[in-house]
Amino acid sequence: MADSLDRVLKAIKPLDGSAMATAQSRQNRLTKPKGSLGRLEELSVQIAGIRSEAIPKLEHKAIITMAADHGVVAEGVSLYPQAVTKQMVLNFLQGGAAINVLASHIGARVIIVDMGVMGMQSLPGLLCKRIDFGTRNMAREPAMTHQQAVNALEAGIEVVQDEVRKGLDIIGTGDMGIGNTTAGSAIFAALSGQSAEKVTGRGTGIDDKQLAHKVKVIERTLRVNQPDPKDPINILARVGGFEIGGLAGVILAGAAQRIPVVIDGFISGAAALIATSLSPRVKDYLISAHVSAEIGHKFILDFLGLKPLLNLNMRLGEGTGAALGIFLAEAAVRTLGEMATFAEAGVSEAEPPQSKEGI
Amino acid sequence: MADSLDRVLKAIKPLDGSAMATAQSRQNRLTKPKGSLGRLEELSVQIAGIRSEAIPKLEHKAIITMAADHGVVAEGVSLYPQAVTKQMVLNFLQGGAAINVLASHIGARVIIVDMGVMGMQSLPGLLCKRIDFGTRNMAREPAMTHQQAVNALEAGIEVVQDEVRKGLDIIGTGDMGIGNTTAGSAIFAALSGQSAEKVTGRGTGIDDKQLAHKVKVIERTLRVNQPDPKDPINILARVGGFEIGGLAGVILAGAAQRIPVVIDGFISGAAALIATSLSPRVKDYLISAHVSAEIGHKFILDFLGLKPLLNLNMRLGEGTGAALGIFLAEAAVRTLGEMATFAEAGVSEAEPPQSKEGI
Repeated sequence: MADSLDRVLKAIKPLDGSAMATAQSRQNRLTKPKGSLGRLEELSVQIAGIRSEAIPKLEHKAIITMAADHGVVAEGVSLYPQAVTKQMVLNFLQGGAAINVLASHIGARVIIVDMGVMGMQSLPGLLCKRIDFGTRNMAREPAMTHQQAVNALEAGIEVVQDEVRKGLDIIGTGDMGIGNTTAGSAIFAALSGQSAEKVTGRGTGIDDKQLAHKVKVIERTLRVNQPDPKDPINILARVGGFEIGGLAGVILAGAAQRIPVVIDGFISGAAALIATSLSPRVKDYLISAHVSAEIGHKFILDFLGLKPLLNLNMRLGEGTGAALGIFLAEAAVRTLGEMATFAEAGVSEAEPPQSKEGI
Repeated sequence: MADSLDRVLKAIKPLDGSAMATAQSRQNRLTKPKGSLGRLEELSVQIAGIRSEAIPKLEHKAIITMAADHGVVAEGVSLYPQAVTKQMVLNFLQGGAAINVLASHIGARVIIVDMGVMGMQSLPGLLCKRIDFGTRNMAREPAMTHQQAVNALEAGIEVVQDEVRKGLDIIGTGDMGIGNTTAGSAIFAALSGQSAEKVTGRGTGIDDKQLAHKVKVIERTLRVNQPDPKDPINILARVGGFEIGGLAGVILAGAAQRIPVVIDGFISGAAALIATSLSPRVKDYLISAHVSAEIGHKFILDFLGLKPLLNLNMRLGEGTGAALGIFLAEAAVRTLGEMATFAEAGVSEAEPPQSKEGI
């Protein structure tokens, strides 16, 4: 199994500069003032480099939403009971959650993956990659073993590899897991050396007192586990989560397969931290869909050097922001591919204005 | 004809507070932490109030892109020759422009309206509402007569009224007109009392020297015409444009028909200034799609008290930003209408976390 992660890390190559140059040159010849589509133009060129195609197409879209439980909820860090993770997975399967609606809106399939939901049974439409029924309480002991962390990463890799066979041109990441913003904050604090206080937010909507408690839980988690800032798998094992590991695997496999990965909010950001620590080159394959209202997300994006496309004060997870980001990525490649050039449309190009005197 | 504008102004009513309250209450019962869809939730409630429906649907979407020429281009204010207005209208009709691609991407029809393009013939698919073959050079004389300004507004009203018969649940505004950022800046300066220097931007991409020249042209335009800041039709006539007047009419008619109007960039913003000056209540019917890279647009949005959904450094016009905004509006109403409630999905609601001692 461990070979798989190594193979994927070795398969991640730089973007295709030649495809990017051709895409940029085409952008400059399309019937619009140069650069006037702003970030859509940049996005189209990035995706050309990722797909190694001057005019890429994004036909097959998937949101991969991974769910797992977190032992640390025993410390009272969330506004919702742990049972909500499973209940929401059932809601995903019935099509009633925000991610179902938004994925339908962009014409993407949703792949719901059980990475370790408490009490979850096998169900049609649910991909089981369970590592265990929830992590251990990381405020008291490591969240998982080193082997479980590797298994979580490889489960994410497997999901992508299976989906690629069905056709997969762009991936959105999503998460569900009561307590997972606590793990996300712990990962970011461990990796960046920033204080728990700075990087911890309100998750599903806790108040000031509950936030202070959550910060203390994360401080204790870091003290108890002493994660190694230079070893992302160690961080994942000590203070992570199964869905975060799975998503890091999805990101790595996406990059290895030259598939753009649109990352969602805070939890996907934490997964991106693990993935880019394992392979810095992965960053070029990432598109940040939005900046979440969860306070630490902005810091994660700054740390990764990613510029979010949207800022809509969303903080739901599930891949909801990623779905909106995939829409923009499609808008970007469709304008690149489908617009007429100045020559094709018989439109005159820019010329220096003929200034008149005497104003 | 003038009755029509008066009738429309009288028909603009406040938002439906009861539909908004019902929509908000439903948002709070959907399977997500309260408020976690951020601006999408706000948008869904606004649209409920506009449509006077607790669960609105946005089935019929249209981008109304109005084109006209500007006599002021004789002063050398644009990087492109005047002929490009007509050439781009032909490009719209052939489906080669950015707005064609983005409207197709969101499943909206595009209505191309000739409000006064130089040398434009009748063509299939082109709606002719020509006021004249371009405005006069406003740096020397009024851009149009008072009657032409009223006619432009009423042409916009007619377009919406005709489209409503085909089904119309949301409108996006768009523009094409070489030289029209000069008119847009002049309108905003006239209405707000701000200096031409502050509100004038680079349009299609002029350099510093050309920008300084453009500012001087606008200063002269304001000096020559002395538009009355309290009379929006006077401003439109003296320093406006036919497509800007038409779009102001579209906005007014949209509000009167309880149709949300997603406004695009700087030129649509100038049209919104005219429309809201004629009827301040119109503002509640507006959705600002994005803030354009054209510098004055941010000031217009601040002046109108509108918060843009997107900031993608776009500055193309045509309705391209509006198309992306319509997608977000649909995402908002679809989540409102299609997500399951906590009760329907059997998901537990938020509860105070049970804090453990001894951390």
